[in-house]
Amino acid sequence: MLGAERETLAEMFRELMGNERVSENETLRELHAKDESYHAQHLPDMVVFPESAEEVSAVVRLAGKAGVPVVPFGLGSSLEGHVIPYSGGITIDFSLMNRILEIRESDFLVRVQPGVTRSQLNKELKKYGLFFSVDPGADATLGGMAATNASGTTSVKYGVMRDQVRNLEVVLADGSVIHTGSLAAKSASGLHLNGLFVGSEGTLGCFTELTLRVYGIPEETAAARASFPTVDDAVQAVVSILQAGIPIARVELVDEPSMEQANRHSGTNYPVRPTLFLEFHGNKAGLRQDIEFCREIVTELGCERIEFETDTEGRNALWEARHNLAYAFIHGHPGRKMMVTDVCVPISELAGAVRHAREAVDRLGLIGGITGHVGDGNFHIILMIDMENEEEVKKADELNETIVKYALDRNGTCTGEHGVGVGKQKYQQLEHGPALAVMQAIKKALDPGNIMNPGKVIDFKQGGSAE
Amino acid sequence: MLGAERETLAEMFRELMGNERVSENETLRELHAKDESYHAQHLPDMVVFPESAEEVSAVVRLAGKAGVPVVPFGLGSSLEGHVIPYSGGITIDFSLMNRILEIRESDFLVRVQPGVTRSQLNKELKKYGLFFSVDPGADATLGGMAATNASGTTSVKYGVMRDQVRNLEVVLADGSVIHTGSLAAKSASGLHLNGLFVGSEGTLGCFTELTLRVYGIPEETAAARASFPTVDDAVQAVVSILQAGIPIARVELVDEPSMEQANRHSGTNYPVRPTLFLEFHGNKAGLRQDIEFCREIVTELGCERIEFETDTEGRNALWEARHNLAYAFIHGHPGRKMMVTDVCVPISELAGAVRHAREAVDRLGLIGGITGHVGDGNFHIILMIDMENEEEVKKADELNETIVKYALDRNGTCTGEHGVGVGKQKYQQLEHGPALAVMQAIKKALDPGNIMNPGKVIDFKQGGSAE
Repeated sequence: MLGAERETLAEMFRELMGNERVSENETLRELHAKDESYHAQHLPDMVVFPESAEEVSAVVRLAGKAGVPVVPFGLGSSLEGHVIPYSGGITIDFSLMNRILEIRESDFLVRVQPGVTRSQLNKELKKYGLFFSVDPGADATLGGMAATNASGTTSVKYGVMRDQVRNLEVVLADGSVIHTGSLAAKSASGLHLNGLFVGSEGTLGCFTELTLRVYGIPEETAAARASFPTVDDAVQAVVSILQAGIPIARVELVDEPSMEQANRHSGTNYPVRPTLFLEFHGNKAGLRQDIEFCREIVTELGCERIEFETDTEGRNALWEARHNLAYAFIHGHPGRKMMVTDVCVPISELAGAVRHAREAVDRLGLIGGITGHVGDGNFHIILMIDMENEEEVKKADELNETIVKYALDRNGTCTGEHGVGVGKQKYQQLEHGPALAVMQAIKKALDPGNIMNPGKVIDFKQGGSAE
Repeated sequence: MLGAERETLAEMFRELMGNERVSENETLRELHAKDESYHAQHLPDMVVFPESAEEVSAVVRLAGKAGVPVVPFGLGSSLEGHVIPYSGGITIDFSLMNRILEIRESDFLVRVQPGVTRSQLNKELKKYGLFFSVDPGADATLGGMAATNASGTTSVKYGVMRDQVRNLEVVLADGSVIHTGSLAAKSASGLHLNGLFVGSEGTLGCFTELTLRVYGIPEETAAARASFPTVDDAVQAVVSILQAGIPIARVELVDEPSMEQANRHSGTNYPVRPTLFLEFHGNKAGLRQDIEFCREIVTELGCERIEFETDTEGRNALWEARHNLAYAFIHGHPGRKMMVTDVCVPISELAGAVRHAREAVDRLGLIGGITGHVGDGNFHIILMIDMENEEEVKKADELNETIVKYALDRNGTCTGEHGVGVGKQKYQQLEHGPALAVMQAIKKALDPGNIMNPGKVIDFKQGGSAE
């Protein structure tokens, strides 16, 4: 942005929101120039801190008139450069819109502002015997989680972020404010906008309010850790458990090098074997039967050791190893940066995909562990990369490409839960084929000036039939 | 369509598909001039029976060049005039595309052609210990169910049609063929097209293949019938059961006049009281505990009588009264036509909405019973209307309008599961507000010639900012 243009806009914003909520400060801009990924940084021209949908609407309208990009920002925990303003412009920081507006207990719904974090919401919900299910690694904002269609360990039972969104208040590129849904649990009215806006990564509009599903805290929770001779055996066990109709709430796979890393980090002595971390939600009697049945199934499939925990303390200890895995790798490799792959394949292809990934990591001589949400077929390679070492960075890119192509060949996806941002854009044509033109046409129809988080998800300039 | 134009098109289609799969026969056209609703009939100019996506694509491309409308047709069981070709043109009948293409057991997925019916699919799935969950009243085609985002009695546990669709093959207005998803259980790649196309009622494209989620048949199923002093008590019982985390698979409310009608039709002697029909899926021990807990909850909330059935025969008998309700009304009122309302409200508003609906039916002197999917807040008034009686038809319309406005005032929806078609179009502006312009913009971007089932869901001529 040119200096004069920038000053005119900043002046208008200050008039709108006051001096303190409009900033061109270098340090503050730097905080909004990056996310948690390895992608290159880029400064926004200014950062604004709106307190209402009206203010967001006014900001977007003014930006639109000036043809200046607008990038929504939650906490910056995205993993593919989603919030990095590569074309400069205005970053809208939602940290002041962080109120829980309403808890509709009987409707199993909450209404929140986009800056509320998932732990903030869960702390409040606990008082009502309710919980919010989606749990990405970071304590992200709910607005950001909706923008990227985040998920985590519980989607096998409760679904991903998209499944939780009942309604969004969205400021569009022209400053108009729409609602994408209602409070009704189901609807066959109009075209379905909820699903389209979730995962749109700020490219179709800015979320200013979310209505989300919540759930009753289950009567009982049981956790288990089971080790297997091979990854194939572990995956087959999960398929068999699901086929038996046992309602798993979580099932995470951790491969051998990752178990080793976890042991080293936590001082534990777990078998260095492909391991499943499982969680079951239900009532006491039902869980007891599930656990017995589960033990039978996994034993038959070669499980070498399975340990159950039903009390909170035991459960927490068991899950700690899994939860701390990323930190275990980070602390174990000082000076290196984490780079995480994120493909998702049909469950029947998961064992093969994990084997293929492990071989590729070893062949390229990279450091990395594999962990997966087995119930969804989604897995990550946690790579520890020396970003100064050009060759190693190149190898990491090569690995990512190999993994993605393997997944797409099996009708999977290049990103299960991290989103496209800038990192997965090069795979969009390959994954979506002619459907990409439909996405471009929708983007163009809703944001003809291409001001909403430009250059993310869909490269507008790619053209195709949408141009 | 003019005679000459029609003949040219028919000739091209015959060249494409042979004589037998292109028909201008009057009787056949009449079969495609209506659905199961009370909406006025209208003949298509011709009916074609494609056998592949390629043929559908060729038909749509030729129709598009001629500017002639295209209406997809499954079995004609829609309830709001969705398949009635009010602008004439070509009806594409999918009855020859009725093959189950693949059952991916370990992925809990099936790949089907759009003409497969839900009972046809379930018959095949049973061999694998699997089932497809969505169960609208009619034995509809899966293509039609996806087009209207159908649901039924099981959505409280398994979700609606949109939740089952993993991927669609769609022929667009320009004849291009896209895939809206993949085989991955979750994805954060691109804009989410699955959700947008489900429920689009043929206005954005024709489905030529569907990939759907299926589930393991639960180990045990238990059913219950519980009668309450008032509708409020019954609804409160459901909220309490859900809050307790008891996983209900089905919960249907039947009001007093409907119970009376059911008794008269089936020769049963059930209490003429607001009644819940419930179903639970789980394992043996878990169900036993659920049932006990459930009995405690409902008794505390004034339930006068609750009866459980766990064996298949007892369960079937119990559900018969509920399933036959529409027939009970139809048979009980010969010469009258069924008209069904379909609003959905937040669960907390359901008791009030049902009370309001009952008062309105009685005040207007109409014949009707109320039945609802309580877990979703979706309920129907089954009205029996003498269509020859103008005043009665007017009153039925008035009732529908009253019910819809009550629901929209409480942030509900005008249609929970039947869809918009032509019947719910007049409520689209009121329900969606400025979001309607977004829907129109999407429709215009994907079907600029307005040839895909024109006049359904979104009235293109309404204009607004999309024009």
